Amino acid sequence: MTKHDLSLLSAAQSAEAIRAGHLSSEALVESHLDRIEKTDSSIRAWAHLDADAAIDQAREMDRVRKAGRATGALHGVPVGLKDIVDTKDMPTRRGTPIFEGRQPEADARLVEHLREAGAVIVGKTKTTEFAFMHPTDTTNPTDVTRTPGGSSSGSAAAVAARHVPLAIGSQTGGSVIRPASFCGVYGFKPTRGTVSRSGVFRTSVSLDHVGSFANTLEDVALLSDVISGYDQNDPASFARPRAQMLAGAQSDVPVSPDIAWLDFPFHDRLDSDTTEGLNAVIEGLDGRVERFEASPQLSDLINVHKTIYDYEIRQNMAEIAGAHWSDLSDEMQSAITRAENISPTQYDDALGVMASAQGFFAEYFNDFDAIMAPSATGEAPLLSAGHTGDSVFCLPWTLAGLPCLTLPLLVGQNDLPIGVQLIGGAEEDDRLFRTASWVQRALSAENTEGNQHVT
Amino acid sequence: MTKHDLSLLSAAQSAEAIRAGHLSSEALVESHLDRIEKTDSSIRAWAHLDADAAIDQAREMDRVRKAGRATGALHGVPVGLKDIVDTKDMPTRRGTPIFEGRQPEADARLVEHLREAGAVIVGKTKTTEFAFMHPTDTTNPTDVTRTPGGSSSGSAAAVAARHVPLAIGSQTGGSVIRPASFCGVYGFKPTRGTVSRSGVFRTSVSLDHVGSFANTLEDVALLSDVISGYDQNDPASFARPRAQMLAGAQSDVPVSPDIAWLDFPFHDRLDSDTTEGLNAVIEGLDGRVERFEASPQLSDLINVHKTIYDYEIRQNMAEIAGAHWSDLSDEMQSAITRAENISPTQYDDALGVMASAQGFFAEYFNDFDAIMAPSATGEAPLLSAGHTGDSVFCLPWTLAGLPCLTLPLLVGQNDLPIGVQLIGGAEEDDRLFRTASWVQRALSAENTEGNQHVT
Repeated sequence: MTKHDLSLLSAAQSAEAIRAGHLSSEALVESHLDRIEKTDSSIRAWAHLDADAAIDQAREMDRVRKAGRATGALHGVPVGLKDIVDTKDMPTRRGTPIFEGRQPEADARLVEHLREAGAVIVGKTKTTEFAFMHPTDTTNPTDVTRTPGGSSSGSAAAVAARHVPLAIGSQTGGSVIRPASFCGVYGFKPTRGTVSRSGVFRTSVSLDHVGSFANTLEDVALLSDVISGYDQNDPASFARPRAQMLAGAQSDVPVSPDIAWLDFPFHDRLDSDTTEGLNAVIEGLDGRVERFEASPQLSDLINVHKTIYDYEIRQNMAEIAGAHWSDLSDEMQSAITRAENISPTQYDDALGVMASAQGFFAEYFNDFDAIMAPSATGEAPLLSAGHTGDSVFCLPWTLAGLPCLTLPLLVGQNDLPIGVQLIGGAEEDDRLFRTASWVQRALSAENTEGNQHVT
Repeated sequence: MTKHDLSLLSAAQSAEAIRAGHLSSEALVESHLDRIEKTDSSIRAWAHLDADAAIDQAREMDRVRKAGRATGALHGVPVGLKDIVDTKDMPTRRGTPIFEGRQPEADARLVEHLREAGAVIVGKTKTTEFAFMHPTDTTNPTDVTRTPGGSSSGSAAAVAARHVPLAIGSQTGGSVIRPASFCGVYGFKPTRGTVSRSGVFRTSVSLDHVGSFANTLEDVALLSDVISGYDQNDPASFARPRAQMLAGAQSDVPVSPDIAWLDFPFHDRLDSDTTEGLNAVIEGLDGRVERFEASPQLSDLINVHKTIYDYEIRQNMAEIAGAHWSDLSDEMQSAITRAENISPTQYDDALGVMASAQGFFAEYFNDFDAIMAPSATGEAPLLSAGHTGDSVFCLPWTLAGLPCLTLPLLVGQNDLPIGVQLIGGAEEDDRLFRTASWVQRALSAENTEGNQHVT
């Protein structure tokens, strides 16, 4: 295997090879660093990169293995972190000049889990301002004239460019699923409360989720397992066992799964090639997908999401906005300003609808293994559009706190990737991965019979 | 299976049966609560017991399972916590009237791990005053006229009495190994830094370790795996993968292991039946145990341990001693007073010796899989002796931060249990369990051939 090839390995493959002594973490990390050096001038995925520190961590993990000590699930595997995730040994700038040079004193809880798993923290990936809307200068590795999506722009781009096999992102609206779809990688946001948000910049206590990016279904499950854990300091965290996502991805379905599709009014925002591709996916699944018309109440979840997000981001930004108003983007200033018109009663009502949406979907998953939905409007928009794309297709599911997974199954009219989203029941993330694995196999069998849209 | 029998199940058996739906956590917990009700008036293992809360947790874990959600490694299994481990839902009194009614605001980190594993926290077990020397009123379930040992008195007694299959203790000198030996159960203290001490009362930052009690080798490994984890807030915690102890306990040795035995001058404190029993164990292992004379430097580690413990407990008790001197026991007052004579230089020198002991033993484990040693002087002393026994046989290993395991292999002249200690290399806790499993099998084969001392 040449040095260059190492950056094409999956995290699961690399960790296994490192544990077995067939590969050194140092060689793996060097290969990724080489790739970053060669391509990041055009992709600009990294807010902070510490090559020397990464090599040091890699050597340490190699030493641990050679000493016969315990190896971890991500032993010696490089990982990138969205730049809203605190690290005690690297600055965390949250995508804003306001926090230029900010050095946290502690690691986020999820970073503790990564270190315990033997992961090598390579650096921080670019995020939109405060993981909200104002874009970074990161480009899409599949076409550098296009956006990688947001807010986890750098994480999606870094994984797509094979700068790292794994990266951490976050999603409050659609900030994992959409960039993964645009960049042609797997993106996953687990059930609310599965992963701790302690040490991750808070925009919305109700809606913020940590998520993961990878180039294979197994890898995105593996990373999600590693960062999962109960944390009493996160109000969403639950004191119960976590679903085993990798085990889910590796298991067979007991019977062919049942999948629901909901037609929402906002589906008119889909590009025509996306509609066509999604229809081909549904057809390819041989009658396992049942289509429904979404009720008006379901469509209204979009507005409920907006009410909660605006209200909470205004609360969370209050101190920063007071001190640094002129350093905030227009997008952020507008959100904070329009939130002034949301009354506490409107906010409480929105939280009430959110709770009932959770109850509604819980019953849904008695009959269905997953809901299928678009991940985004279609191919990534051009950078010149000045935004990171439309998150509408993610909002109902993020609001309900359900596990969401995007699979890079389609290619659009410009040969650019388009994801297909699967949504699972709360705390049934393992079942969602099991269903997704079946979907991939079913379509892959179909594809060998000549389907054009399903790659 | 009758209700009564359930309290005899191992944690591993119970968790498996609960996960498979063959047993409810509620029935299991009720069975243990029945046993507590019947026997705790004479054993007095519990500082705080909340039967209703335990049943509530059990029902919740049963609901989680029935809902098809994820189950944990200790799903629905009752666990006791030494009363120096903070819990947000139960008082934590640290074995002293000074903290009568003290209600922590947060769980210790290890309690978060237990909750995430699905464990049912039954209550708090009695500890000597501040996990130091002044005894509790807990009795030894194998003979209620004798001490269960200390400082983890209630945890060892509760497991021996089958009040719970698992309990958490701590060891700064010999507070896990000795009570386990006296009560005839398995006790294990992992490598320093494996388990977080955040939220556990600190007596000595250098020497405090969290440890576990159980009735089987697998169970004590399973519990240790569950509570292990990196915690940046614990200065001893290491940011590396943890040894997998259950996997170690379940694996076969690649070749017959090599075990060292060191004869220390303080071995003259051993009871004659203990010496006899240990010799029988060594003989039973068919030449795998090599005996050495401990060098004078090694024997001096006992004093080094004492210097560090006294110096640090004085620091950690300073505030409490200032406010509550007359509420402290004579044992604690003496320790604090004698520590006044330890100079910072003597303390620093002791820390230096401790560091070199770690280096010395690291080389040792290049040649040997484990060191075998006594766990205690012999059978549990009578309560009337007024102390919890002699910790000397644990001090060198605790000082060096090595993993220590006691196996209930021997019975003494009064038919009471005597443990045999095995010590492993740092961060090779899995190898220690693998070796221990081999030792048990080897002696059990030997035993069927008629050895009297090895049960």
